[in-house]
Amino acid sequence: MNLTELIGYIGATLTTFAFVPQAIKTIRDKHTKDISLFMYIIFVLGISFWFVYGILLNSMPIILANAVSFCLSGTILVLKIKYK
Amino acid sequence: MNLTELIGYIGATLTTFAFVPQAIKTIRDKHTKDISLFMYIIFVLGISFWFVYGILLNSMPIILANAVSFCLSGTILVLKIKYK
Repeated sequence: MNLTELIGYIGATLTTFAFVPQAIKTIRDKHTKDISLFMYIIFVLGISFWFVYGILLNSMPIILANAVSFCLSGTILVLKIKYK
Repeated sequence: MNLTELIGYIGATLTTFAFVPQAIKTIRDKHTKDISLFMYIIFVLGISFWFVYGILLNSMPIILANAVSFCLSGTILVLKIKYK
């Protein structure tokens, strides 16, 4: 793996797992007033397109990263709808 | 542009601009209690790596998408620190 690829993988890992602390916080606090419903509707929809893109390209990194993102942002979306 | 590329561009556009409604909501409400500080620290850091990756690859779509993401998620991070 060269430096450019390494930097790309670090970026992908950070932006994917950034949603972990938000998901944990929302599960614990059961408060979602300050979180935008539209952000998570649009984000989950966007991640679904990324996931299909990964399948069409047969790219396992894109499929895996977006499967994780879908679970995390999908959890936050469900909690936003539940606790709004 | 073929169908696969189109699906990728739709995914990239949606996940990039998903942060617009959150930024608008946070600017208006001046409330950030339910938003995770660590999510936005990690996300802005991750976007910075993506931006450098785009420069190293000389890929204008990656550079532009991440410049927009940096401004949006950076705005939310600054407001989170300001109003916490």
